[in-house]
Amino acid sequence: MKAPVVPVTSSASIGDPEFAPLDLTRLLEPAAIALVGASTNPQVTSGQPLRYMKEFGFGGRLYPVNPRRSEVQGLRSYERIASLPEPCDIAVITVAAPQVPAIIRECGEAGIPFAVVLTAGFEETGATGAVLQKELRDAVSESGVRVVGPNSTGIVNLRCRSYCAQGGALSEAGLQPGPVAVVSQSGGVGLSILSFLQSAGVGASYLLSSGNEVDLDVFDFAGHLLRCPDVSTIALYLESSISGRKLRALGRRALEAGKPIVVLKAGNTGAARAAATSHTGRLTADYQLFRTAFREGGYIEVGDIDELVDVTKAVSGGMRTKGARAAVLTTSGGWGVMLAEQCEARGLTLPPLAPETIAAIKPLVPSYASLGNPVDITPQGYKDQYASYNEITRLLLADPNVDLVVVRSATGSDIGAWADRLIQIVEGNGKAVLVHWAPSARRFLDVKERLERCGIVCFPYVNQIAAVAAAVVDFSARRDACAAGAVTIMPAEKAAVPPLVLRNSPGLMGEAGAMECLRAYGIAVAKSRLVPMEGLEALDLADFAFPVAVKIESDDLPHKTEAGGVVLNVAGAAQVREAARRVLDRVRAKAPTAVINGILVQEMATGLEVIVGAVSDPHFGPIVMFGMGGVFAEVMNDVSYRFAPIDRSEALRMVREVKGGGLLDGARGQPPRDLEALAQAIVAISRLIADYRDTIAEIEINPLFVRAVGAGVSAADCLIRTGSRSP
Amino acid sequence: MKAPVVPVTSSASIGDPEFAPLDLTRLLEPAAIALVGASTNPQVTSGQPLRYMKEFGFGGRLYPVNPRRSEVQGLRSYERIASLPEPCDIAVITVAAPQVPAIIRECGEAGIPFAVVLTAGFEETGATGAVLQKELRDAVSESGVRVVGPNSTGIVNLRCRSYCAQGGALSEAGLQPGPVAVVSQSGGVGLSILSFLQSAGVGASYLLSSGNEVDLDVFDFAGHLLRCPDVSTIALYLESSISGRKLRALGRRALEAGKPIVVLKAGNTGAARAAATSHTGRLTADYQLFRTAFREGGYIEVGDIDELVDVTKAVSGGMRTKGARAAVLTTSGGWGVMLAEQCEARGLTLPPLAPETIAAIKPLVPSYASLGNPVDITPQGYKDQYASYNEITRLLLADPNVDLVVVRSATGSDIGAWADRLIQIVEGNGKAVLVHWAPSARRFLDVKERLERCGIVCFPYVNQIAAVAAAVVDFSARRDACAAGAVTIMPAEKAAVPPLVLRNSPGLMGEAGAMECLRAYGIAVAKSRLVPMEGLEALDLADFAFPVAVKIESDDLPHKTEAGGVVLNVAGAAQVREAARRVLDRVRAKAPTAVINGILVQEMATGLEVIVGAVSDPHFGPIVMFGMGGVFAEVMNDVSYRFAPIDRSEALRMVREVKGGGLLDGARGQPPRDLEALAQAIVAISRLIADYRDTIAEIEINPLFVRAVGAGVSAADCLIRTGSRSP
Repeated sequence: MKAPVVPVTSSASIGDPEFAPLDLTRLLEPAAIALVGASTNPQVTSGQPLRYMKEFGFGGRLYPVNPRRSEVQGLRSYERIASLPEPCDIAVITVAAPQVPAIIRECGEAGIPFAVVLTAGFEETGATGAVLQKELRDAVSESGVRVVGPNSTGIVNLRCRSYCAQGGALSEAGLQPGPVAVVSQSGGVGLSILSFLQSAGVGASYLLSSGNEVDLDVFDFAGHLLRCPDVSTIALYLESSISGRKLRALGRRALEAGKPIVVLKAGNTGAARAAATSHTGRLTADYQLFRTAFREGGYIEVGDIDELVDVTKAVSGGMRTKGARAAVLTTSGGWGVMLAEQCEARGLTLPPLAPETIAAIKPLVPSYASLGNPVDITPQGYKDQYASYNEITRLLLADPNVDLVVVRSATGSDIGAWADRLIQIVEGNGKAVLVHWAPSARRFLDVKERLERCGIVCFPYVNQIAAVAAAVVDFSARRDACAAGAVTIMPAEKAAVPPLVLRNSPGLMGEAGAMECLRAYGIAVAKSRLVPMEGLEALDLADFAFPVAVKIESDDLPHKTEAGGVVLNVAGAAQVREAARRVLDRVRAKAPTAVINGILVQEMATGLEVIVGAVSDPHFGPIVMFGMGGVFAEVMNDVSYRFAPIDRSEALRMVREVKGGGLLDGARGQPPRDLEALAQAIVAISRLIADYRDTIAEIEINPLFVRAVGAGVSAADCLIRTGSRSP
Repeated sequence: MKAPVVPVTSSASIGDPEFAPLDLTRLLEPAAIALVGASTNPQVTSGQPLRYMKEFGFGGRLYPVNPRRSEVQGLRSYERIASLPEPCDIAVITVAAPQVPAIIRECGEAGIPFAVVLTAGFEETGATGAVLQKELRDAVSESGVRVVGPNSTGIVNLRCRSYCAQGGALSEAGLQPGPVAVVSQSGGVGLSILSFLQSAGVGASYLLSSGNEVDLDVFDFAGHLLRCPDVSTIALYLESSISGRKLRALGRRALEAGKPIVVLKAGNTGAARAAATSHTGRLTADYQLFRTAFREGGYIEVGDIDELVDVTKAVSGGMRTKGARAAVLTTSGGWGVMLAEQCEARGLTLPPLAPETIAAIKPLVPSYASLGNPVDITPQGYKDQYASYNEITRLLLADPNVDLVVVRSATGSDIGAWADRLIQIVEGNGKAVLVHWAPSARRFLDVKERLERCGIVCFPYVNQIAAVAAAVVDFSARRDACAAGAVTIMPAEKAAVPPLVLRNSPGLMGEAGAMECLRAYGIAVAKSRLVPMEGLEALDLADFAFPVAVKIESDDLPHKTEAGGVVLNVAGAAQVREAARRVLDRVRAKAPTAVINGILVQEMATGLEVIVGAVSDPHFGPIVMFGMGGVFAEVMNDVSYRFAPIDRSEALRMVREVKGGGLLDGARGQPPRDLEALAQAIVAISRLIADYRDTIAEIEINPLFVRAVGAGVSAADCLIRTGSRSP
């Protein structure tokens, strides 16, 4: 009998812009579990799943399968999967690696839809293991069983005490279920995240470890979890993946569901892509694609586990904001300074308070209290059991200039009264409150728990407050934009087909052809004329403004300048002929095999140099890049990225994101530049790469000259590589 | 009777390059304490010092002074200071603010050398308080009493239970003395640091809060503490100070003593200096001066209290390294990736292991273990109670390529055996070991304490490991360089006096004069000639290479280009005359009052543009700046700083520190540049500003052109402002 396969998309769906979400209900809420290879020793790996489920009270049926025993840990043991009394939801597999493929086939025949393979010794161990993993993959596709692992720590659902998993951290009694789901590509890191969350008082019902991902991967897990009503937040540990489109689709769904995915991505310093020719390509290291996907979707990227725990605590409790304007309330000048500084460093603003707020606070504080922002009422200001302190908190929350309030906690014996009143004030207010926790680590833990149960998160360190507030602000803004429809990707109405784009076979396109593509997409290019070598003598440049550039035109020379193929600032027609001969001689000497199409004569453009580029990534899709001048992008790596296509406002944000972007406003006595025209050019390139993602691999305009406001832009050089980039 | 004043330098020493350290022994180890204004209520501020000392067992004599009581908290109370039975070491003062100056005078008459003023209500509260503080200052200088505060949290020495201090955090019993001293400009932050250190198991004997610093400041405190044999480390919270020279001198002493000062500096985003004309001046915000001082001396700068606690824990336990080469040992691939990544991001390297190390490890691990760096022995690798795991740790410590080892801890019941063996291995080894602590927050705390008592610090988060390791490596390198005499500041042999430097009255110096100064210090300048207006017609430029620049020469125009005073690329002598007239017309229109010295004709230099600048700061002394091109420094703020003078190797480090510095190696088909000549120029400017620190306020060469290797540099413009910069 073939297994009643779960409604699925085939694994061919990997790479589709939208992956259809799987229904993993029976994996996460099993009624009956087979434990294939379960050990009689509850301490060892293969004995742990059964031990944990017995010890912590799994409510369903458990069937050990072990031909050498009649009883395992007090339960009747079955000889074979085929002899089980009912078709289980899951088989937890701990047999030796070589036996696993056969067991998967037996599961398929017995109608078991899911297998969780804890056994290690596959691809992670080298060549022999890789052969085994290939066998396992065959067994998966032939049996129809959906498989977690191998080399997985397993699947845990604390709500129903389903421990299809191993790991010492799971032996702790009293692990608390809650709205967080932990999804991890590393078993060890996943267990630690669960453990750290629990220590921080953050309940997590689910732990899903994907192991070697022979079948199901972290995106399948997260895709299902986003649709679970008892999950508000996913904590994701990611190492590597080529499922760029799944990552992007998952991010979109998270944003739509309003459920953040707090993601820690490791393994970011891998070698940059090798094959790319243009700078755009060289700069597009994999990690940039991940980061771009994180920022586009409902992800919150964090830098370490501690930040993951802090942010998860806040967002899983529902903390959201309407904007980035923070008010800080403190009784200590020193802390006020540090809170303000770190909040501002993370992109929050500390606006002046509304006059009515200041007027209302004034009678509550000593005359020398500071009523700026931070509000510092000094240690003299809370002698009334923090009654006026709490009243000030209320006033700050009511201030129309304020989106969130950071308040330093009370200390000492008044702390309970302070907290109870604070909870009343915050309840139903809708604005976020973060508490800068003052007592030492071991005191008043009950008060802290009371506050955090009400969504008022408490942190002792200033950088935690700032990091969490910034993450919440950022996610909330993206979520609101999504809900308002403001992040809808533009419809892919393909622009008029530029005649030359598809003319070339895979490879480089000459500059003249590339310029024609730009023109087709409305990008102004420097006036130019392609002259065949034999036409040089008769060349008429009466309609050109001198000086001009003289460039070799060839499909074989991506870096013309380095090949000696460019002469700039040529003053007249006679000099053009001379320059053309010089250029030709140099190129023939340096690149004797290059096919020469002719000489490109081009008016010298002026303005501020920027780079606009684009790449069609085989895993993530089309992506557009912006950077200032040559050296900014090349030496400083000061560039911004977005998935294409984008609209004008997103293009303007890309420009603002690079550090050198301030140059466009007119530094050093230079005029302000035509930002609108620049944004249009970026949008146009994003459309061009999106429309021709399957046939154009890379585009780079370098430089694009940006003129003064109103005077537009002018592309002075352009490189287009056709043919899809190999994965 | 005048107080027997402690051997002191007067407060006039502030600003001296070397401040003579005070002897604060009687302040920190008092035998007799007067408590002036002590309250009978042990809960309130004025009752707390007496309460804490009685409760925790201060061994010396305590004398409450309170004219309205005959007894205070069980001790006989004295009516006046004059009636005390012995001259106390300290008077702790908690009387109302207006009475404090008179009390200080009484202390002086009674021969009490130190007063700790806990009373608030002085300068921090506004104008009235400032008047009081002025009165207090007068009382200090007239009485000779050395005063802590006012508005201080006080002075605590836990070793002798001397609590001349207030604060709820001090009420905790069992605070542990230890090798750390906490010094803080904020009372609240200081108490929190003590509290956080204690929670982290780091003993700290001293807490010194400087309050409003009417007399003694944090540098006086730290200067004394560096000489205390029971202090290994100072944790310093700093907000602001104009004692730049004290900060630098303290840093030098810390380095010489080998005792790190872990410093958290807040208040860094204050407005940049206003009066400066050149970009150098504008970019030299105060914080840069502090950072430069931190890096020069024995400071370790941290970003928040948590990092301060982590780093202090490691360095106070004596952790040091001989280099930055780390080996990572783990049982989990995921953690290995994260540890490696964050260590590298902080400047550590993970070199390949020595072949003999790999050969020795191989028999101890499964065939599929990874013997790169990180070493990942997989979860299968520690089945022998971590015996082979510990043996691998030993081998890594013995590897000649390795300076420190990061090892993930055991988990579960084997952890005790693992830790005991690890302690044996590390003992006497001399290399640093950091443990990446795996168990959840509440487990095996005894094992962790055992390890940390032996200097093996344990952290659960990867960023903690990386931050601490980087701080230790950095401090150790500076300390070793200091011990080897490699950081001796060069002797200030004044270079040949340039004739023009001191000619001008305070103000700007014309470019011709500035160029002469550069020449006097050996910096090549673009060939130029100053021509008076009336000499234009007879101008002979036969010895000039065209094109040239034509510039207005005036002491009144720091920004010649913006005033229309520059024409570049002038092709011949006739055009020079024409350009000179154009320049003159434009400047006369824009700046009619500017005095014109003539016209400067200058050969156009070529090369890569850099900026070299210098400022003589009234508080910190002379400082030199380097940045790439105009926009790099101006728009990106991508510049580096050192206190002047510096030597060649330090100049090369400055060049390497800026992000755009890679351009000098020859990007984009450009030749590698003459780094040696550039370094010489930076050294020369650092000497020029150091030699004339009292008469030159600012220097800026902008641009300095750096030519290809061997071809030197050429200064194309230079601005010098004479006269000292006002504080």
